[in-house]
Amino acid sequence: MPRSTGAPVRFERVALIGLGLIGSSLGRALKRQAMAGEIVGHDAKPAVRAKSLEIGFIDRAEAEIAKAVDGADLVVVCVPMLAIGPVCEAMAPHLKDGAIVTDVGSCKTMARDAMAKALPKRVHCVPGHPVAGTEHSGPEAGFPELFHQRWCILTPPEGTDAKAVRAVRALWRQAGMNVEIMEAERHDLVLAITSHLPHLIAYTIVDTAVDLEADIKGDVIKFAAGGFRDFTRIAASDPTMWRDVFLTNKEAVLEMLGRFNEDLSVMQRAIRKGDGPTLFDKFTRTRAVRRSIIQAKQA
Amino acid sequence: MPRSTGAPVRFERVALIGLGLIGSSLGRALKRQAMAGEIVGHDAKPAVRAKSLEIGFIDRAEAEIAKAVDGADLVVVCVPMLAIGPVCEAMAPHLKDGAIVTDVGSCKTMARDAMAKALPKRVHCVPGHPVAGTEHSGPEAGFPELFHQRWCILTPPEGTDAKAVRAVRALWRQAGMNVEIMEAERHDLVLAITSHLPHLIAYTIVDTAVDLEADIKGDVIKFAAGGFRDFTRIAASDPTMWRDVFLTNKEAVLEMLGRFNEDLSVMQRAIRKGDGPTLFDKFTRTRAVRRSIIQAKQA
Repeated sequence: MPRSTGAPVRFERVALIGLGLIGSSLGRALKRQAMAGEIVGHDAKPAVRAKSLEIGFIDRAEAEIAKAVDGADLVVVCVPMLAIGPVCEAMAPHLKDGAIVTDVGSCKTMARDAMAKALPKRVHCVPGHPVAGTEHSGPEAGFPELFHQRWCILTPPEGTDAKAVRAVRALWRQAGMNVEIMEAERHDLVLAITSHLPHLIAYTIVDTAVDLEADIKGDVIKFAAGGFRDFTRIAASDPTMWRDVFLTNKEAVLEMLGRFNEDLSVMQRAIRKGDGPTLFDKFTRTRAVRRSIIQAKQA
Repeated sequence: MPRSTGAPVRFERVALIGLGLIGSSLGRALKRQAMAGEIVGHDAKPAVRAKSLEIGFIDRAEAEIAKAVDGADLVVVCVPMLAIGPVCEAMAPHLKDGAIVTDVGSCKTMARDAMAKALPKRVHCVPGHPVAGTEHSGPEAGFPELFHQRWCILTPPEGTDAKAVRAVRALWRQAGMNVEIMEAERHDLVLAITSHLPHLIAYTIVDTAVDLEADIKGDVIKFAAGGFRDFTRIAASDPTMWRDVFLTNKEAVLEMLGRFNEDLSVMQRAIRKGDGPTLFDKFTRTRAVRRSIIQAKQA
């Protein structure tokens, strides 16, 4: 079991379930920081397991979840949101008493409920979300610095074992993250506006471009640098992960999308009416948000 | 007068009208490449003129447009779209015969019409748009590399003097840009989707965040790194410039915004209905656009 916060954390055996961008980055961070006696990896795809062994961020690959979690002190579930439930069900009977199970999913109410439903009371569930990623996927896309200076939000339900929470916090801290504890509901609302809605909008505008007449589309690709290019990067993110985000954090996303649509209608009307003062006022107050972010050292 | 394309271009006297991000970056590029015998600068704000002289990317500052353009071979109008007409009216009687006037505005039909209306036939109008910028404004924000490897789109109306077009093309090439000739109408449509709509959407989502309840807003700033941060950067762009873009490229922006709204409704319905396959299909085809952009070396 890990030592207390502050001192370097070390687990005898860590199981990584899912070896994509996040799982493979965490494996690399565990190796670099010598946080695990053994790292066992599982992924549904044989090619991904083979590649992960070859890269070397896991010590052993297991085709069956049961074998992967056998004897593990810490299990990190790094799969898309809708796979969390089935994965937890598969591992439940094979977890050792007192094992810690955490995840990396983007919707914390759903992760909490799925884990609570599938896992026995003899293990500790600490839902978590390392807010880090790139538009690349798969075990080759991972790198240990992915987590550096980024936020990790943990949402342990009331009554969660304090030692287990400390252990998960120490894990992410040692991987380079700033860790924050928050209620799951609040997490989902905050992420809906900071992450999920921006992704949805980026996917949508790129989708709009895909449907343009062929001759215009060529020029759109050619002259993408004016703002559109940033959106295409976001809209190149993993389709399965993001489908699951929108299916699971549905309520919070629809709430924020509703507000966004109202605001977009105001902008649209101002453009149609040629209402310069409204546009100028809006564009001025949004500038202040950037200053707040720079002050909060998030830029 | 400038030499032909290929050889280094040199103007005896260049007048920069407007000394913000673009004007000051161009002044620096002109200096670095020794493209001008003398650079005369005008800006409506005395403090901007003084700062520009102090930085040294102009040789002389003039408070009056008439004096600034006096004897200039090339006049580059670097002001927000709605200021192009008044600025051209002010300079018209004072331009020397055969002078070349170009601009840097984001809506080329409007720039063409404003210049054609205000300027005499004894000068050459070559509307242009260096597609480059940052979220920073003012003479101190400029830097000569701003133009490197970016596109500049020229939209000379039929019958424009070929030598004048070559001179403006040589100017931007020597500043480091790739130059493309296009019809003004096409430019406006392409930029509406690659630049204007992304900016409008970024402004809108940041505006939505501004209106959030105070306690949530603090967390939005804190956890901005998940995608929202990129939008705040775009939404920190100059309010006057962007107000004018939406007031002048109105039709093309409303056309693209209409298509975007339709596509967003499809996404919204898919989320509300829990329609995973539709979301997955959309997210997969948008990924292909990113690949096209990487292939086109625009990433």
